[in-house]
Amino acid sequence: MEKNPGENFCLRILEGALARHRPALLFLVQGESSTGVYQPLQGVGPLCRRYDCLLVVDTVASLGGVSVQTDQWEIDVIYSGSQKVLGSPAGLAPISFNSRALSKIESRKTPVSVFYWDVKHLSNYWACSGEPRKYHHTISSTLVSALREGLAIIAEEGLERCTARHSACAKRLHNGLRGLGLELFVEKEDARLPTITTVRVPANLDLKVLQDYAMKNYAIEIAGGLGPTAGQAFRIGLMGYNATTDKVDLALKAVREGIQHARKLQQTSKL
Amino acid sequence: MEKNPGENFCLRILEGALARHRPALLFLVQGESSTGVYQPLQGVGPLCRRYDCLLVVDTVASLGGVSVQTDQWEIDVIYSGSQKVLGSPAGLAPISFNSRALSKIESRKTPVSVFYWDVKHLSNYWACSGEPRKYHHTISSTLVSALREGLAIIAEEGLERCTARHSACAKRLHNGLRGLGLELFVEKEDARLPTITTVRVPANLDLKVLQDYAMKNYAIEIAGGLGPTAGQAFRIGLMGYNATTDKVDLALKAVREGIQHARKLQQTSKL
Repeated sequence: MEKNPGENFCLRILEGALARHRPALLFLVQGESSTGVYQPLQGVGPLCRRYDCLLVVDTVASLGGVSVQTDQWEIDVIYSGSQKVLGSPAGLAPISFNSRALSKIESRKTPVSVFYWDVKHLSNYWACSGEPRKYHHTISSTLVSALREGLAIIAEEGLERCTARHSACAKRLHNGLRGLGLELFVEKEDARLPTITTVRVPANLDLKVLQDYAMKNYAIEIAGGLGPTAGQAFRIGLMGYNATTDKVDLALKAVREGIQHARKLQQTSKL
Repeated sequence: MEKNPGENFCLRILEGALARHRPALLFLVQGESSTGVYQPLQGVGPLCRRYDCLLVVDTVASLGGVSVQTDQWEIDVIYSGSQKVLGSPAGLAPISFNSRALSKIESRKTPVSVFYWDVKHLSNYWACSGEPRKYHHTISSTLVSALREGLAIIAEEGLERCTARHSACAKRLHNGLRGLGLELFVEKEDARLPTITTVRVPANLDLKVLQDYAMKNYAIEIAGGLGPTAGQAFRIGLMGYNATTDKVDLALKAVREGIQHARKLQQTSKL
């Protein structure tokens, strides 16, 4: 399946691809961080079951920032990262398998070639195999404690309030960017990921000048595009701790001043 | 190659095995933590080169506690763990490849099946491929900073003084254990790993009682055996921060009292 960068997949396209390719597994990214695209997942799980296919979802850049209904949406395997919306240090990737995914794993005929990637071994290490735990590897206890704290902070706020906060901040950011005469990279409003906003690089703007300005004056890292958006877009991530009205306004200030600074440099060099 | 638990491999045995099996790779563990065995590495590198074989060495439980001369001993691939003698949090495994190992990697014909385990990709991520860095994954910066601090502490002490301290503490521990009438699991003195000491479980001693006593009264975890030493040995690790005279004496105190306690319980139950 291919789509233009900045667009997501609708159920009709997904069903067409499932019917044509009959895959064992469908992999979707709920929050696509290089394009800033939000992929809706409602209805995809039942489709996958109809075509006897597992649904695997990446929520690295989305979990905590948008609604994720793993069981209700019939997602078979889902994972995230500790260092994005969950606001913990990088280094951990929480993952979850449902019984459909587990039976697929149980019925594997070829052994997994990498010991550390064998979920059967890992399930024992994670103490969910029903057997006494065997030694496997030494996890980072500091990262586990930090992730627990990150989750506790979200639990204190309440998950729904947390996602609402991300959504409100994204709207404020989008409006502010348009107010600066900028164009959002993702055209359809409901395809925009609240946690990462992609902005079209205006014609004749030296993005590097904007990035350096924001870093030097506000310690804000404005990311360039990646893959299909390289050179075409810049990216503003507002998640977890950073998804506040103050941070939105600070980011907008940095962008506004950075663009003015870049324009001034251009005029000077033309003189 | 097989040896009785508690013994290491001499050059004659290693050469015999290299000549017989002609392996592409010889893997040795310098500090074997389940048996407390130290594997000398001097002379193994040249042997491996004679038989066109790579030498890969695990120094997880030894680096910092014993001498490791990677280049002088002609070790091709060597790795360790952050959480043992280096005294940093668990979660990182420093690894090093020499040019012989790199040419083996470069000449691979089958692609590596796991993206994250492909050293060619990783060398770019580690900024040592000579090419501009591509995105690969997000490492834990907190763990990297902590490892740097662990290494800085060793550098301040001086590596030779650090290994000498481990050696002196191990001797003090061994003498103390013998003074308690205990028998070391590794018979040959030069096969004993300074960082982890294995002790034969005395006849009729309930090891669980000793372990519980040490944990409850001194917050010292005395490990049981693993694999071939399970039930036969208990293990005392003294490394990094814990390799001090005070800690040796505390461990000996915990063992002495724990054994007395276990004996008393046994006598009581016999009455």
